[in-house]
Amino acid sequence: MSTNKEKYHADFVCSECRQTKYSLNELIYNCKKCHGLLEVKHNLTILKNKSGEEWRNLLDKRLGDLDFPYTSGVWNKRELVLPEINDSEIVSLGEGHSPLLAQPRLAEKLGLESLFIKQCGITHTGSFKDLGMTVLVSQVNRMLKSGKKIKAIACASTGDTSAALSAYCAYVGIPSIVFLPADKISLAQLIQPVSNHSLVLSLDTDFDGCMKIVKQVTKDQNIYLANSMNSLRIEGQKTVAYEIVQQLRWKVPEHIIIPGGNLGNVSALSKGLFEMKELGIIDQIPNIIVAQAEQANPLYRWFEGKLEKVEPITAQKTLASAIQIGNPVSAKKATEALKKTGGRVEQASEEELAEAAALSDSLGMFNCPHTGVALAALKKSIDKQIISKKDKVVVISTAHGLKFSQFKTDYHQGLLKGENKFVNPPISLPNDANKVISLLEGKLFL
Amino acid sequence: MSTNKEKYHADFVCSECRQTKYSLNELIYNCKKCHGLLEVKHNLTILKNKSGEEWRNLLDKRLGDLDFPYTSGVWNKRELVLPEINDSEIVSLGEGHSPLLAQPRLAEKLGLESLFIKQCGITHTGSFKDLGMTVLVSQVNRMLKSGKKIKAIACASTGDTSAALSAYCAYVGIPSIVFLPADKISLAQLIQPVSNHSLVLSLDTDFDGCMKIVKQVTKDQNIYLANSMNSLRIEGQKTVAYEIVQQLRWKVPEHIIIPGGNLGNVSALSKGLFEMKELGIIDQIPNIIVAQAEQANPLYRWFEGKLEKVEPITAQKTLASAIQIGNPVSAKKATEALKKTGGRVEQASEEELAEAAALSDSLGMFNCPHTGVALAALKKSIDKQIISKKDKVVVISTAHGLKFSQFKTDYHQGLLKGENKFVNPPISLPNDANKVISLLEGKLFL
Repeated sequence: MSTNKEKYHADFVCSECRQTKYSLNELIYNCKKCHGLLEVKHNLTILKNKSGEEWRNLLDKRLGDLDFPYTSGVWNKRELVLPEINDSEIVSLGEGHSPLLAQPRLAEKLGLESLFIKQCGITHTGSFKDLGMTVLVSQVNRMLKSGKKIKAIACASTGDTSAALSAYCAYVGIPSIVFLPADKISLAQLIQPVSNHSLVLSLDTDFDGCMKIVKQVTKDQNIYLANSMNSLRIEGQKTVAYEIVQQLRWKVPEHIIIPGGNLGNVSALSKGLFEMKELGIIDQIPNIIVAQAEQANPLYRWFEGKLEKVEPITAQKTLASAIQIGNPVSAKKATEALKKTGGRVEQASEEELAEAAALSDSLGMFNCPHTGVALAALKKSIDKQIISKKDKVVVISTAHGLKFSQFKTDYHQGLLKGENKFVNPPISLPNDANKVISLLEGKLFL
Repeated sequence: MSTNKEKYHADFVCSECRQTKYSLNELIYNCKKCHGLLEVKHNLTILKNKSGEEWRNLLDKRLGDLDFPYTSGVWNKRELVLPEINDSEIVSLGEGHSPLLAQPRLAEKLGLESLFIKQCGITHTGSFKDLGMTVLVSQVNRMLKSGKKIKAIACASTGDTSAALSAYCAYVGIPSIVFLPADKISLAQLIQPVSNHSLVLSLDTDFDGCMKIVKQVTKDQNIYLANSMNSLRIEGQKTVAYEIVQQLRWKVPEHIIIPGGNLGNVSALSKGLFEMKELGIIDQIPNIIVAQAEQANPLYRWFEGKLEKVEPITAQKTLASAIQIGNPVSAKKATEALKKTGGRVEQASEEELAEAAALSDSLGMFNCPHTGVALAALKKSIDKQIISKKDKVVVISTAHGLKFSQFKTDYHQGLLKGENKFVNPPISLPNDANKVISLLEGKLFL
């Protein structure tokens, strides 16, 4: 019982049967009884000893705190993430604190009054995955320090997860192994785990095939599994919900649009929002719109077809390569979240996502193709009047465009299918000021 | 005179003759009398109305402030940057606030007790150039709003500057023009101004040739010049000094190592440090070590040769492409700064910079080759006993490694000259769990 001294605590519980509970210090990913995915469950009674206002004040006070680990936007919410971890066990690369950037020019073009882009790609490894990975690697570090025998941490990844895993592991000195589907990812994505000295295994299969192998290899528990079925990562990723609402001065936007593949980020976003509501930090839940690529849209099919559950499909090749997933691990958690919130799913064709990304870039952004999927879903949701003019909308950008320079180069070379409305190729000129000036006169009406 | 109400103010003054003064609202880059570079000079008498402690407290209080423009690590120091600009004129992409990351594992390998890397590449466009560009574009925006006729902002750039210019201009809607030397920059660097809809002109010359052309084109003042000779950018870039010292709780490190090409960043760093000392914010100046690529080392030659001034050279091709500059614009400011501080210059060969970057990557970093130059200079300075074990060292990382994935890929494919001590190529395997497990047994002694 918490009386004078608050003693925050969390456990794993099964998200399906809800009957089993495990210590966070166990090496476990699925319920031993029903094989359901686990989730981290906090002792809400103790968390509720603080009022919503007290939580808001505490989190506001910690913003800008230069003391480790509050330099992290994840660990400055430590009681809500991993309440029992010690400072010396935390592995942080300064994740979180990413800008929530107003985009008035894009808003105007779309006929919106208020649009923000949450720039989760502005981080150590260039994607939102850092938010979750700091939690997972910290917890493994804690277990190692307490004598658990773990030889390495492994993941199957289309890119961003492996980049995050390898960086956090290299930083603290834990070996990491990443399983990549051969020929399915960009050069820039492969080079991060290589540079960070992961053991990089390129397998002759697709993402789902990599997942199967990684599960077999991690069965004996000497190798810890870091995929998004690992619910520790969700605890870090959910902080994006806290950050967005805090950056809006604790005012909930009408809509949050998030690209979805394996759907861990969707269940994380929703977990963060519901926790905040439960704790009285916010008093309503925004509408969540999950954006999928048409080429890999099992959740969209579930939503449109009013299916009972998400049916696995074979994902087709998409420019949004990180969400080219046909059998999402967190489908059940995501559909529950959408049912609870009345959320929606939208999809974007290859052309739509490329044009949406290019329009946004022309207004100063530089995001990944998955953000393009979300921006295309934004436009379609406005067209369908799901989103109205006066609504405040937040689009979650999941990665930095620098990870996808080939996608952007292909677009501006006119190599992608579609209208290519925003192509802007460089112009070659000789080393001659007069020729330059006469070109500028034509372009800028000097 | 400032009595009750403080009225902060700054002007351009000539950094050479010191006799001329111009309004910040003039379109001017060089002294009209002596052609010297201008610099922004603040009214220090008024700034000194606050004690050092009051400044430290004010800046600490603003950390984590969610009010625009304090969401920017540049504009939360607004009195010290552009004191008279209005909020509505400021063009910010959330720059600054980059992590000062402790690197205990690299420190240990180098025999140091305390090493930090200032991660300036974790920002909107992926390089430290954002710090300066927000100031320049904001000031142009202010001039435009006051009726000045400016058709576009232009720069000659090896990459990072053009990326920053184009993003800030696109965000606010000011046309931009970038002049790039053909075939001298990476694909990822070219694609940023292209995506951000700059008018990108690829000229058949080198960087110095681009500079010449841009100066001719901007002579008539319809096009504003954004190169680092423009001292507005220095005002933004100098905030890196404030951030570093603030992140160290206002304790000055013994050494700051910074890669140098055009040397605007060196003069900016030094300006920030001396201002802080003048204002009583700090009481000593750290030792500045400028790190140059051996292939483009005019400042190093000046330092080693005890020359009177920096002699222009023809820069040779270097992996550190952004500092491949033979005739640095800010040479005079930088040499003065080094003379005043007793600072030093170190150089790194192609092999040294690549190995230093790869070692750092293997410990969780992912920085640009210029950071590799700085890290190589760190090692050499330790070997030469310029830096001793107990010294606290800060290395400024100027850009994100994602801008240089080709450099890293070449390294890990063994394509670069030298020992390649840290290569870690991916291993291809069939889709077969047993083969994977037997490989892991060999690698990890499972």
